[in-house]
Amino acid sequence: MDLHDLIVELREVNKSKIVLLVADGLGGLPMTPGGKTELESASTPHLDTLAREGICGMSIPVLPGITPGSGPGHLGLFGYDPLKYRIGRGILEALGINFEVGKNDVAIRGNFCTVDAEGKITDRRAGRPTTEQCIAMCKKLKQIKIPGVEIFVEPVREHRFVVVFRAPGLGDRVNDTDPQQVGLKPLIAKGEDAESQKAAEITNKFAHEASLVLAKDSPTNMITLRGFATFPKIATMEQVYGLKSAAIAVYPMYKGLARLVGMDILNAGNSLADQVETLKKSWNDYEFFFLHYKYTDSTGEDGNFQAKVEMIEKLDAAIPGIKALKPDVFIVTGDHSTPSKLKSHSWHSVPTLISSPTCRTDGVTEFGESYCLQGGLGHFEAKYLMSLAMAHAGKLGKYGA
Amino acid sequence: MDLHDLIVELREVNKSKIVLLVADGLGGLPMTPGGKTELESASTPHLDTLAREGICGMSIPVLPGITPGSGPGHLGLFGYDPLKYRIGRGILEALGINFEVGKNDVAIRGNFCTVDAEGKITDRRAGRPTTEQCIAMCKKLKQIKIPGVEIFVEPVREHRFVVVFRAPGLGDRVNDTDPQQVGLKPLIAKGEDAESQKAAEITNKFAHEASLVLAKDSPTNMITLRGFATFPKIATMEQVYGLKSAAIAVYPMYKGLARLVGMDILNAGNSLADQVETLKKSWNDYEFFFLHYKYTDSTGEDGNFQAKVEMIEKLDAAIPGIKALKPDVFIVTGDHSTPSKLKSHSWHSVPTLISSPTCRTDGVTEFGESYCLQGGLGHFEAKYLMSLAMAHAGKLGKYGA
Repeated sequence: MDLHDLIVELREVNKSKIVLLVADGLGGLPMTPGGKTELESASTPHLDTLAREGICGMSIPVLPGITPGSGPGHLGLFGYDPLKYRIGRGILEALGINFEVGKNDVAIRGNFCTVDAEGKITDRRAGRPTTEQCIAMCKKLKQIKIPGVEIFVEPVREHRFVVVFRAPGLGDRVNDTDPQQVGLKPLIAKGEDAESQKAAEITNKFAHEASLVLAKDSPTNMITLRGFATFPKIATMEQVYGLKSAAIAVYPMYKGLARLVGMDILNAGNSLADQVETLKKSWNDYEFFFLHYKYTDSTGEDGNFQAKVEMIEKLDAAIPGIKALKPDVFIVTGDHSTPSKLKSHSWHSVPTLISSPTCRTDGVTEFGESYCLQGGLGHFEAKYLMSLAMAHAGKLGKYGA
Repeated sequence: MDLHDLIVELREVNKSKIVLLVADGLGGLPMTPGGKTELESASTPHLDTLAREGICGMSIPVLPGITPGSGPGHLGLFGYDPLKYRIGRGILEALGINFEVGKNDVAIRGNFCTVDAEGKITDRRAGRPTTEQCIAMCKKLKQIKIPGVEIFVEPVREHRFVVVFRAPGLGDRVNDTDPQQVGLKPLIAKGEDAESQKAAEITNKFAHEASLVLAKDSPTNMITLRGFATFPKIATMEQVYGLKSAAIAVYPMYKGLARLVGMDILNAGNSLADQVETLKKSWNDYEFFFLHYKYTDSTGEDGNFQAKVEMIEKLDAAIPGIKALKPDVFIVTGDHSTPSKLKSHSWHSVPTLISSPTCRTDGVTEFGESYCLQGGLGHFEAKYLMSLAMAHAGKLGKYGA
């Protein structure tokens, strides 16, 4: 039985409130065997109190050994099986630059490339232009008009940009036009079904027009397109959980992911203090709040152990402000680990706590990987976190009599 | 989504090396409640060091409560869901006697039985002949020729032997010819589809010829055939993981299981010392090595607690030789538990360690059931061990963006 069907069957309405605080890339590694992780090294009196009052465990983002990107990592935390719901690359790229993708959109990742007089690619990244050049070239591409379709072109950085075709009935089963090697012309787009063929034809027209518009702009004189993706068919949080849900995230990617599952996107300002302020202001308007904190991930990606420790301590300082609102269920976790030692996302399980009057306390006295390992939630797949949240919030009835 | 498809999508090539050391039936039980298991009783300084440097946990071979045979136990460790990939009995029997089964083979378990003048079975095991008699009778059966099919007959022991029919397009959906009770004639073989009917017809001809060849050899004057099995359609380790893989196993069954998943079978000699020597010699030729150690299982099956302890200590003594090669990922586990107390395979979870520079150390200081229970891997299904191995080896890329 599908987990969402089960929840729809069992869910009950009450006024309790759930706060999901996601510290991106929270999990870490000790720099030397037997040492402490970033989270264990940080002074986190408020998180420790939550851990003592609550129940802890280790979240497996996807499956053992699988390192998730931000998309699958967050979908799992929102209770969507990340192996069932896949968000296409084009959509993720568009979300990342704060482009508001809609139901009639095909989002595509674009690269500027260099072609010779015969149209054969000589540099797949067009000599890595500056982002300023990218912005200028995208302005040129924005001039392209194709009847019956609305076209958006937005720069990402260097040679990368996003194209969105907006028209009813477009499919995304279209091949990448990047031939993956130099000496070849960009490939012709073909669709695997009628809807996708429609998108492919628009793509080929767009690429042709691009070649004309950019003709004199070597090395950025041509484009390739890849990662075609339509807006995913995915039930909203309200449809699945019956929860009026809001996202308070500073970075575009996480707002975008929240929008995919139907959350309202609130003005998060620029800091954790702003986010907590927004939470307070909108406290009466929603039953579920997703707060996203980026800096535990970015410092981990930088390989800066000490900076990650400090970012965790800043996070800890924001806990009392959230706790003061008395959420019925307060969850702190990460979408994956980003150990400073590895300077990247990783597969390691993620320390997680649920604080709620209905939780079974478990003797964990500090919030950290080695403590959570001994916690009452054990190891669990992230996709079950929302069921646990709903249960602790008194929002899930009995299964069977 | 299928786990293998996911791994094929995410796998990356690098030069790191994985060693999987399987101590067959490693897990045990204390002889008295609250006592120590075999592994906990053994002095294992080298395994303890690995446990300290690595991450530990408990492997569930199939599912909680399910006791695996050697086939499912090893398939799980190789990352093949043992409930999805089932190896037929005939194939396992053939592997166990070192018969090299191939893609065009149907392997069948044979029993000598005794029939009366009317052809009705009077003893389903032919009075349990000696293995010498079995060998002599098999020689007679080897004389049987059937046009269009190559026939192999190999003794196992006592009344048991293996028959292999080799011809293109043979199926294995054929009923056992053993009627399971005396007073009845051996059953006629029937196939459930055209390919299997072809195998059934060969089977009936072979049984008829056997009745003639053995006519004067009462009590071993007839045969029954069961466990028809073709070579399983199973992707190789190289196809799934992209790993050039080698097995270093002394016993035929484990060589055979490794061959089923496409590993090269190296000359393992007769001892752990020989195996480690082979490992050294072939170190540059493979990325994945499976070493199999039998004696933890056989002593457990004997119910000899002290002997199992000693075999574990011998295993421990071989660890430095393997470690000296500096594998990037070194795994020590078992395919199942074989507690001396039960004198048989069991369902109990299996202590497991992964030692690698990328693992999250977990405070476990000794290798044993009660210590591993506190380990960072928690309880996990054996089929995920290879994903974990690939991740720790840096051979799995990110899922999603």
